[in-house]
Amino acid sequence: MNKTFKFTTDKPTCNCGIFGISGKGNDLPITTYFGLHALQHRGQEASGITKAYKTDDNISKFKTKKGFGLVADVFINSSMVEEDKDNTTISIGHNRYSTFGSSDSRSNVQPFVVNYQDGNLALAHNGNLTNAKFLRRELEQEGAIFQTTSDSEVVLHLIARSKGENQIDKIRDALEQLEGAFSLILMTDEKLIGARDINGVRPLCLGKKGNSFIITSETCALDINRAKYIRDIEPGEILIVDKSLPENEQLASYKLEKKDKIKHCVFEYVYFSRPDSQIFGSNVDKIRRKLGKNLALNHPVIDEDGDKVIVMSVPDSSNTAAIGYQNQLEKLGIASKLEIGLIRSHYIGRTFILPAQTKRDIGVRIKFNTVKGVIENRVIVLIDDSIVRGTTSKQLVNLIREANPKSIHVRITSPPIYNPCYYGMDFPSKEELIANRFESIEKIREHLSVDSLEYMTEEEMLDSMIDHTPEEFCTACFSGNYPIPIKDLEEKLIK
Amino acid sequence: MNKTFKFTTDKPTCNCGIFGISGKGNDLPITTYFGLHALQHRGQEASGITKAYKTDDNISKFKTKKGFGLVADVFINSSMVEEDKDNTTISIGHNRYSTFGSSDSRSNVQPFVVNYQDGNLALAHNGNLTNAKFLRRELEQEGAIFQTTSDSEVVLHLIARSKGENQIDKIRDALEQLEGAFSLILMTDEKLIGARDINGVRPLCLGKKGNSFIITSETCALDINRAKYIRDIEPGEILIVDKSLPENEQLASYKLEKKDKIKHCVFEYVYFSRPDSQIFGSNVDKIRRKLGKNLALNHPVIDEDGDKVIVMSVPDSSNTAAIGYQNQLEKLGIASKLEIGLIRSHYIGRTFILPAQTKRDIGVRIKFNTVKGVIENRVIVLIDDSIVRGTTSKQLVNLIREANPKSIHVRITSPPIYNPCYYGMDFPSKEELIANRFESIEKIREHLSVDSLEYMTEEEMLDSMIDHTPEEFCTACFSGNYPIPIKDLEEKLIK
Amino acid sequence: MNKTFKFTTDKPTCNCGIFGISGKGNDLPITTYFGLHALQHRGQEASGITKAYKTDDNISKFKTKKGFGLVADVFINSSMVEEDKDNTTISIGHNRYSTFGSSDSRSNVQPFVVNYQDGNLALAHNGNLTNAKFLRRELEQEGAIFQTTSDSEVVLHLIARSKGENQIDKIRDALEQLEGAFSLILMTDEKLIGARDINGVRPLCLGKKGNSFIITSETCALDINRAKYIRDIEPGEILIVDKSLPENEQLASYKLEKKDKIKHCVFEYVYFSRPDSQIFGSNVDKIRRKLGKNLALNHPVIDEDGDKVIVMSVPDSSNTAAIGYQNQLEKLGIASKLEIGLIRSHYIGRTFILPAQTKRDIGVRIKFNTVKGVIENRVIVLIDDSIVRGTTSKQLVNLIREANPKSIHVRITSPPIYNPCYYGMDFPSKEELIANRFESIEKIREHLSVDSLEYMTEEEMLDSMIDHTPEEFCTACFSGNYPIPIKDLEEKLIK
Amino acid sequence: MNKTFKFTTDKPTCNCGIFGISGKGNDLPITTYFGLHALQHRGQEASGITKAYKTDDNISKFKTKKGFGLVADVFINSSMVEEDKDNTTISIGHNRYSTFGSSDSRSNVQPFVVNYQDGNLALAHNGNLTNAKFLRRELEQEGAIFQTTSDSEVVLHLIARSKGENQIDKIRDALEQLEGAFSLILMTDEKLIGARDINGVRPLCLGKKGNSFIITSETCALDINRAKYIRDIEPGEILIVDKSLPENEQLASYKLEKKDKIKHCVFEYVYFSRPDSQIFGSNVDKIRRKLGKNLALNHPVIDEDGDKVIVMSVPDSSNTAAIGYQNQLEKLGIASKLEIGLIRSHYIGRTFILPAQTKRDIGVRIKFNTVKGVIENRVIVLIDDSIVRGTTSKQLVNLIREANPKSIHVRITSPPIYNPCYYGMDFPSKEELIANRFESIEKIREHLSVDSLEYMTEEEMLDSMIDHTPEEFCTACFSGNYPIPIKDLEEKLIK
Repeated sequence: MNKTFKFTTDKPTCNCGIFGISGKGNDLPITTYFGLHALQHRGQEASGITKAYKTDDNISKFKTKKGFGLVADVFINSSMVEEDKDNTTISIGHNRYSTFGSSDSRSNVQPFVVNYQDGNLALAHNGNLTNAKFLRRELEQEGAIFQTTSDSEVVLHLIARSKGENQIDKIRDALEQLEGAFSLILMTDEKLIGARDINGVRPLCLGKKGNSFIITSETCALDINRAKYIRDIEPGEILIVDKSLPENEQLASYKLEKKDKIKHCVFEYVYFSRPDSQIFGSNVDKIRRKLGKNLALNHPVIDEDGDKVIVMSVPDSSNTAAIGYQNQLEKLGIASKLEIGLIRSHYIGRTFILPAQTKRDIGVRIKFNTVKGVIENRVIVLIDDSIVRGTTSKQLVNLIREANPKSIHVRITSPPIYNPCYYGMDFPSKEELIANRFESIEKIREHLSVDSLEYMTEEEMLDSMIDHTPEEFCTACFSGNYPIPIKDLEEKLIK
Repeated sequence: MNKTFKFTTDKPTCNCGIFGISGKGNDLPITTYFGLHALQHRGQEASGITKAYKTDDNISKFKTKKGFGLVADVFINSSMVEEDKDNTTISIGHNRYSTFGSSDSRSNVQPFVVNYQDGNLALAHNGNLTNAKFLRRELEQEGAIFQTTSDSEVVLHLIARSKGENQIDKIRDALEQLEGAFSLILMTDEKLIGARDINGVRPLCLGKKGNSFIITSETCALDINRAKYIRDIEPGEILIVDKSLPENEQLASYKLEKKDKIKHCVFEYVYFSRPDSQIFGSNVDKIRRKLGKNLALNHPVIDEDGDKVIVMSVPDSSNTAAIGYQNQLEKLGIASKLEIGLIRSHYIGRTFILPAQTKRDIGVRIKFNTVKGVIENRVIVLIDDSIVRGTTSKQLVNLIREANPKSIHVRITSPPIYNPCYYGMDFPSKEELIANRFESIEKIREHLSVDSLEYMTEEEMLDSMIDHTPEEFCTACFSGNYPIPIKDLEEKLIK
Repeated sequence: MNKTFKFTTDKPTCNCGIFGISGKGNDLPITTYFGLHALQHRGQEASGITKAYKTDDNISKFKTKKGFGLVADVFINSSMVEEDKDNTTISIGHNRYSTFGSSDSRSNVQPFVVNYQDGNLALAHNGNLTNAKFLRRELEQEGAIFQTTSDSEVVLHLIARSKGENQIDKIRDALEQLEGAFSLILMTDEKLIGARDINGVRPLCLGKKGNSFIITSETCALDINRAKYIRDIEPGEILIVDKSLPENEQLASYKLEKKDKIKHCVFEYVYFSRPDSQIFGSNVDKIRRKLGKNLALNHPVIDEDGDKVIVMSVPDSSNTAAIGYQNQLEKLGIASKLEIGLIRSHYIGRTFILPAQTKRDIGVRIKFNTVKGVIENRVIVLIDDSIVRGTTSKQLVNLIREANPKSIHVRITSPPIYNPCYYGMDFPSKEELIANRFESIEKIREHLSVDSLEYMTEEEMLDSMIDHTPEEFCTACFSGNYPIPIKDLEEKLIK
Repeated sequence: MNKTFKFTTDKPTCNCGIFGISGKGNDLPITTYFGLHALQHRGQEASGITKAYKTDDNISKFKTKKGFGLVADVFINSSMVEEDKDNTTISIGHNRYSTFGSSDSRSNVQPFVVNYQDGNLALAHNGNLTNAKFLRRELEQEGAIFQTTSDSEVVLHLIARSKGENQIDKIRDALEQLEGAFSLILMTDEKLIGARDINGVRPLCLGKKGNSFIITSETCALDINRAKYIRDIEPGEILIVDKSLPENEQLASYKLEKKDKIKHCVFEYVYFSRPDSQIFGSNVDKIRRKLGKNLALNHPVIDEDGDKVIVMSVPDSSNTAAIGYQNQLEKLGIASKLEIGLIRSHYIGRTFILPAQTKRDIGVRIKFNTVKGVIENRVIVLIDDSIVRGTTSKQLVNLIREANPKSIHVRITSPPIYNPCYYGMDFPSKEELIANRFESIEKIREHLSVDSLEYMTEEEMLDSMIDHTPEEFCTACFSGNYPIPIKDLEEKLIK
């Protein structure tokens, strides 16, 4: 009976942040909690933690708490994150932003926990499988029953049905059958396991806190816990942490037999990951600054009257790029100044529930307000990382226009988005993408009513990926070149 | 049974944001809701809205909804902000951060609503009265009963007991008896009333949206509603909006008989108000930039090896000052660069509930993380607006230290805080203030383990108040000079 | 946004059950909780408890918890009824069923707690004042402000404004001014006080549990706590319990100066009080059995074919009367048998929230079902205590009819209700009373579609009041003779 | 963090009430809701409803709402039972009282809903399988994964893995493998299916409301919906309702191949089912009255002084038996009278949450109080249906003793309980059963401190089962003769 609707930013959203820890001490669940809080930007819709422990009778138990909302809301007053009287030895957690799975069902919230012949098994998954529907159809024909509409559930069935000789073999066997993008964390009664697809589409890293090993999406989830970053889980790697062994023998690494080229999601650098994280081997913030610089080099704004150019970001995701852009303008000898022209509310995450009666035009005002003194009569360059539907951008431009700038120029640190993502980024339908709704960038500019609008080209963008070659990235959403086959699409199991 | 505790920033907090609107249409309550959302920084503890309307039998009714939490949480799914079927003609709202009133009682959440001989009356109050206990004692001796421990309740009693000939006389009569700081909004069955103490300590302004008049704390609450700013309510002014009159006759202004000098709270400019607001006649952001510049002029950081100085703010409250500081360094010919070295979580307001088990050292990490690449081996200047207890500052410095800077220099855009505020700003006890805990700034620097620490002097700070003379400000928390007598203190009704 | 509506029994409802305890030990609040649970039948809408204790600094404090719903729901997980770490010395509680006060406002839920010149004061009130509006008008003219629409609030103002020399004098002074029906419990920082109007309309009794004194509405609230019944608070008595004195000097009794005849509410015996309680000096169950007997004597059912008569109650309120009726039939030599023909759901209190879509005809089925084997082809006498609107009665008769009885005869242990109650019983409007909607009992019988319908006469009913004379009772709802003047009605302050 | 504990009656509890309806109209979910409310006595711990409908694109969907608590609490404000805009064609529901499945997990709440190769499938199960662990072990070895610890989940796996040619064959195939007691309702995208084990241990009946067919545990769930009883589902029958066929062809009945003797649970008649229901072909109330009569014939109470004997029930479960007992005493010429000596609170179901601090001795008082006038100096016979642990009985006797009876005699309408039930009745452990804790009935009598205590013999009890032969009943809990093998026990999969 909820009569309210959500205000959400018009940004691509990725499906999920994951965190797992294996060790001792009574702080494993709360470490998971803080890790998930640091990964909140990867999914604000739902959250869950599962922990493994033994009863006094030495029986292995899993305990799970999950729910809808921010991590802090789901676990408020929860015994799960209070003093851990269960002597937890492994704990995993998940933040969700739904992609294909129906978002309204609680059973779709991860971690998924099941019981099978080898004991308990829990899963937290980030990414999107491209043959999940195909595998599901096969499994159903063999008599499998499914509890969720989530693609991730097939992984559990594949493990349970594998003829592998031991648990590790079964897991390898299962993962070999998966296609698409996945970074995933598994938990058995005894082991914590991290695995990553052969293309390395989504990030996943290994850290250490005291004697405990951590596997998680981004390094910011290590930092919040004062854990040390060790290395990334490699594409195609299965890393097993077995806490029953001596500390220096706990890690065992296996490789999937299938091989393929590395194809990182470029959007993780452009927008999705936190600027204070290191992923795919580089600092996100460094690449964003470079994106800003390259944007200025190739798409500078110069006022014809010679007026100083005011560089403003859409806070906070474009802050670093805006600094890079203004620095480069300066180097180019273009009179410019970095200013904070948009104030972002501290009291909204990426979503906010609006009363149903709310008029559409409140939209972006609930999140941003302008600093009039900064904007009035000035030449404004607004730096943003992407335009998806364009609705927020248009509202934002209108808002800035009310403060009476001399002119508004929009610069984007990525190319226009034309295509859907099948590897875990959640865009609106193709028809809703602004790049497909207008026949040219000039028409988009007209629609947004700005004085100029320029996007980076794919080449310029890839050229900004310090320490990476252009071939290492998937750019399907811009270019339409899908590096990993999408079997479900070929089989017409999805449209 | 709540076993969790709040993580709160170590900042002074003011008591409350207020909003009132008089007009027609079915959007008054929701306009109030959005206004309170924009004022959320003035109080995150509790929130309430009261609306006035007439029943089909022409009986005047007030309806109130209030609760603990952020505005968005209190009014989620609330019929109060849904389509207004009651034809509301006036609506007022309040965000609270408790000062003297006990914080745990729901009855202390404003607006306060009572019924007296002239009908219904509601009150939303920002500020702190300095003779409230004295007045309360007098009122109790005359047989008054009190429902709350809040000082604000005396205002209602004074109005109800006044021998004034009409409602306006009664309100004037009551306000003449108040001492201290107040910006307040009253609502009767027919009128919306705004009033401000004779010193003008707290802000209060008038705006207009369509045919509706708005009275509110800061202009950001007008902006979010696309309302136009008209003017400030003047110190000592009582402004009455009578919607029953023709639109151009609805406003009537009265002056309190008592006179005194203007004494704005300088902290509203330094930290408390939003940078996108205009208060006391000036843009907050403009003054903050000037504070940054003056800070650089008088307290520059120059690396002895001639290394470039990295200017970083504690986001977001010091962002503008940091820009001003770096701009000024540049003008001084000091090699410097503005960088974002601290990332602030989007998922915390000014408070965050932590599980009880949380170790203290998680503290500031829940809210901030460093961008390592920005800090490593660099000369860091951290710009902040104030240091209160110093606990957060110390944690923040430790956090930055972990990223291995060459040196850390802290610069503060205000002087050390030595004294309590009796006019509505909420500091910890005198003993807890870091400036009183250490005998010198040098000792504070040692405690914080930074390479240098410099505060602005009172003169430098006041010199940054563009368009204002130094005499217009209360600086009691820095100087100990209290411009308004504190009767309750003299009478020993408070300690 | 609640789209559901309540199913409520069609019975008169009284406003409120009250409980107070003064003593030591850490069980005062939980004793109050159990007392309120035992009094749940006197009000299911809202519930509250206030306790008095001293802080470590010897400051007197009151703590209150109240809310809407059953006692067990309001206090679930509440620290108020958990182990009492505050060394509570007095505790009072209240169950509400709203009468005149607007039911939707939380501030109307009792106990009412205020602060005045003599300290803290809390009130729990059962009954209805007949000059409350008059007193309120007077108080408002003197400058009093009201927080609630409840009549009970005037009592607190009268005490605070009294010129009496001490607290007791003030309370006496206040109570002398009240007209109408009241049993009330007051709590000051030091004392528990019980008082009852001069007519003794509503019950109030004194009990003792260990060293603690209890004042409460009915003895069932003593029984649940294993407390001993001492005596009734007498009409016009003010009983003060001062726990600071030696145990045998703690009780002090005062008498109001005003005098009047005793006028107990006869409905307390007929329907309202619990059958296991003793009120007004008699066991409720004994009088109900006698009502059943007298009903049988004067209104027997004899089947013309000589078939055995099956006596059934509407469970549970008429169970005892049904036993009395059948016993008497037997003595009269009429072949009869007591049977349970209606099964009452254990999972409904006196109200039940129904989904909005519910069709009206589900009505009584949610609460009752028939035992078909008992009813089929039998001569049924249904014993009930009263008919108010008649809606439930009609549905009940329809339900019984579906089980195919030979005939249905309805017998009521009270006369038809024609008039409103101004002393605390809550009837629907005069027009809704079935006795006013039909011109004769015969027409009501036709409407209900029963084979015969007979009510007790007022004389027969009063004749059943063992150990009481008929003059001791108010029968205004039946007879229209109001024994206490209703000033608010005369002054047209109510309609 | 719940610090409260439940007060539960000391009675055996059965696992679950079930309800299913197939038809048209928008009232299927709400009919299920009312059915579950009528079956609330069969499980108060949790409740759920699943409905089947088609989307506008003709895709079959199941929607489920479930939660902990009473039916009315789980579905308050739920869109599930509001106006059905989904054109639901089938709806099933379940009330749970946990037996073997861990009670604290939400995933154990039924209906269970899964997706498999033939579409959606939902299950509601009443009873207990005796080879569930065995089957689960087998299924796990084949690679099945389990979501719950509930035995009922194996049924779904067996169906999904069956090699049967069509859905019906698969269901038959699955049910043929089950051992133990089950009445179950299945729902596919198109069909409603009811099935009962070959011994007919638990009840299950067919009804009709308008054009809709209903399958449910007891007839009281038909009555509340004004549905007509058609017949029982027979032991070993699978009844399929296919709404796509013409109304008179919708029912199809199949028989399991396995055959065995009928073995109804005698406790359904003695205590568990509602007295207004008809189960196993007889009216429950009729058998309870007969139990009371046979109890009086074989175990009368005669006072040695010739005082009249007061017959009292423990309300409400023994009400009918008490009437039968007293009627029979009368026929035997023993002076006696039926009285209501215990008043049962209307505000407790079979459980009640008590604050943790509660002293044990409040126990039974929260639910019952005595009518002192009825008991004092009288010879009391207390009729009860069973004694399990004896804790409630002892408290009840103590309570009655406080009212000073001349003597207390306890008579039970069933034999002593010595053995656990493996067919769906939930007893405490063998050691906790009072009959095992004392060496003789005389010792139990001493423990309870009553003047006499007599149980019915098994023969007397079975002799009261009108229209049934003694062989038709399972009496394992009394006799230890288990009519159905318990494979899980033999295999040591349970203890």
